[in-house]
Amino acid sequence: MIKRTLSNELLGSLGQAVTLQGWVRRIREVSAGLVFLIVADRGGETQVVLSGSLTTQLPTVESVVEITGVVQTSRSRVFPHELAANQLTVLSQAEPLPFPINQAELGVGLDIMDKFRPLALRHPLYQDVFRVQHRLLAHFAEFFSQQGFTRVSTPKMVATGTEGGAELFKIDYFGETAYLAQSPQFFKQMLVGAGFERVFEMGPVFRAEAHHTSRHLNEFISLDIEMGFVEDVNVLMDLEESFLRSLLQDLHERFSTITIAPELPTIPRLPLGEALGIIHREHGKVSEDGNIDPEGERLICQWAEREHGVPAAFLHSYPRHIRPFYALPGVKNAGLTESFDLIFRGQEITTGGLRQHQLNLLLDSMRERGLTPEKYEFYLQVFRYGMPPHGGFAIGAERLTMQLLGLKNIREASVLPLM
Amino acid sequence: MIKRTLSNELLGSLGQAVTLQGWVRRIREVSAGLVFLIVADRGGETQVVLSGSLTTQLPTVESVVEITGVVQTSRSRVFPHELAANQLTVLSQAEPLPFPINQAELGVGLDIMDKFRPLALRHPLYQDVFRVQHRLLAHFAEFFSQQGFTRVSTPKMVATGTEGGAELFKIDYFGETAYLAQSPQFFKQMLVGAGFERVFEMGPVFRAEAHHTSRHLNEFISLDIEMGFVEDVNVLMDLEESFLRSLLQDLHERFSTITIAPELPTIPRLPLGEALGIIHREHGKVSEDGNIDPEGERLICQWAEREHGVPAAFLHSYPRHIRPFYALPGVKNAGLTESFDLIFRGQEITTGGLRQHQLNLLLDSMRERGLTPEKYEFYLQVFRYGMPPHGGFAIGAERLTMQLLGLKNIREASVLPLM
Repeated sequence: MIKRTLSNELLGSLGQAVTLQGWVRRIREVSAGLVFLIVADRGGETQVVLSGSLTTQLPTVESVVEITGVVQTSRSRVFPHELAANQLTVLSQAEPLPFPINQAELGVGLDIMDKFRPLALRHPLYQDVFRVQHRLLAHFAEFFSQQGFTRVSTPKMVATGTEGGAELFKIDYFGETAYLAQSPQFFKQMLVGAGFERVFEMGPVFRAEAHHTSRHLNEFISLDIEMGFVEDVNVLMDLEESFLRSLLQDLHERFSTITIAPELPTIPRLPLGEALGIIHREHGKVSEDGNIDPEGERLICQWAEREHGVPAAFLHSYPRHIRPFYALPGVKNAGLTESFDLIFRGQEITTGGLRQHQLNLLLDSMRERGLTPEKYEFYLQVFRYGMPPHGGFAIGAERLTMQLLGLKNIREASVLPLM
Repeated sequence: MIKRTLSNELLGSLGQAVTLQGWVRRIREVSAGLVFLIVADRGGETQVVLSGSLTTQLPTVESVVEITGVVQTSRSRVFPHELAANQLTVLSQAEPLPFPINQAELGVGLDIMDKFRPLALRHPLYQDVFRVQHRLLAHFAEFFSQQGFTRVSTPKMVATGTEGGAELFKIDYFGETAYLAQSPQFFKQMLVGAGFERVFEMGPVFRAEAHHTSRHLNEFISLDIEMGFVEDVNVLMDLEESFLRSLLQDLHERFSTITIAPELPTIPRLPLGEALGIIHREHGKVSEDGNIDPEGERLICQWAEREHGVPAAFLHSYPRHIRPFYALPGVKNAGLTESFDLIFRGQEITTGGLRQHQLNLLLDSMRERGLTPEKYEFYLQVFRYGMPPHGGFAIGAERLTMQLLGLKNIREASVLPLM
């Protein structure tokens, strides 16, 4: 079998014959009988020199080729080494492209991008997005494993929703109606109570929200954690802040050529009411429902950047009526909750908090909201047999990717956003 | 805030006061005013000595408690150290249990296990299953990342199925019919062609198969890889064999007290036809459809164990009619395919192979099977713009867990098999 050499391995093979395989990204016909190809593979790009008869039948741009040749030093400013080709085989000839992808910017709209996704993804800027996302997911798993968290995979087909029925996709489950999980919330809590104490999950969740905005996906990867024996919501915020700091350090070390959000100073923590007050005072903006809206999220990050040197804020102490029934009421003010959101670069990327772990109070909270506890027996059962105080949070993986890289639309952070 | 000490951290605190938090697994009343509690937490179990007034109001079994006391050496054979309690707080009192979980074996049927899953999962044997599964998933990600694979998350809501319509769950997608992905097959191939070259995914897949056997789940975690620039199916089998060898080594190093399948000698590779011949010769068993059935899988593993000292076999060269349209026809015999299954301890845990990467031949193969290429345009497009020869495989995570640990039923390897 052929031993393949990647673009970033040429240096070690100066003067030797190697075989390169990849996509023809660019073709430059210098003169009769002299053509330069730029060939891309997962290691980067290589300049290939074709001469003589090899230049008579050129592959089209984006064709897949296999080239054997000798590695030599190059006079190019970009490529210190190049391959002087002896043999060229076209493994797959590309048809004419619907748009050029060998430009510095891709320069096509999201509609074209979506229609020709696999082709557009070959652009180096998109390759970078998903190399960063790969590390984000790997770092999440490594960080929480080191903290004693067990990775779990919970059901995505469920009998009932977590927060209500409006955002659920219906499934036909052998003639009965089931739903796609909008969050592993109940399951991760159950698994804390099942003795794992600390669990994490990295899996898809599904939201049947009709709004097509630049920050919503119907299907996204939720990075969920939940932990037992925690009674102070600051412990959760500390944990998330450590994770983000550690993640940014990892990314900066690995990706020196990609622009990633700078390392984080301490993220300010403020009650939601205080945040709304700042927005009102500075911008005259009043909240209708006691919650913060997307514009408010942008404003509070601007404030945090100005006052604390970091474009992020933990907002906490959300009122009960805008948090789910399982949110733990505030220790000092029962009208509030021991919960938080993390707003990062103007967008919410995390929701978290402590949960009610006492069955009787949880039942009261459900009934207050008109929920029927009998329908939630699969969830409530774990509270009967010894449930520790607990809490957790969820990070939207695509939103975090988007904000780390300063992308404009969340669809750029999802590898194949088909739906 | 209280600093918590875990059971496996007691050793370092001899003579000191510490706080332990966990579940009361066992209660032994030694005499009036002297009670031993066994308290379980994610670090293991601790013996706690209660005396005097602390013994007057005992928590129920499986209640969650917080105990402060002094660590001392113990006369117990099981626990070298114990906690002499000064203070005991019940954080959550457990109701009477539906079955005891503090026995060496759980001793309840799967029906009870399913009904009281979170409680049953507290049993140490189940904790072990998911600690092993956690490492299996972590090892998979680490192994393939090191080999240059990029982790991807592909859609689970799809417009069309991969292999046909029979096993698909239908979703109501804003009034239109969509389906749950039965495999990321098309997507992982598209992403190879999208320039990632090597991708892996660890995510749920959904199969609407009505058979309720000990080895089927409607929803399971598929560990998928796909790689470009591979033209010999042995490369894929080599890769899987390396992964499994590396995984077993990792698990044996980490889990010395758990019984895990032994390390693997070389796994024999034989054409399916040869395997069927062995089964016929040795057991007089004839295949009806040219395929191997579950009994045949058990027999061939027995043969491999006897002849090659390993209860596993790669079966390859499956006939075209029992493989999907995208399977690459055999290089030497076009009636066969360059595909394989891995049978391990009597059960198929992997299907893989090379794929047809030439568009015209792929279209022929689809038409032969009565498929309408127009419906698969989202998949076929990538073949137009430079698609490398490629192949891959998928491992069922729960099946691999089950076979590594010798579990009887796949539901024991799924943390919350609700459906």
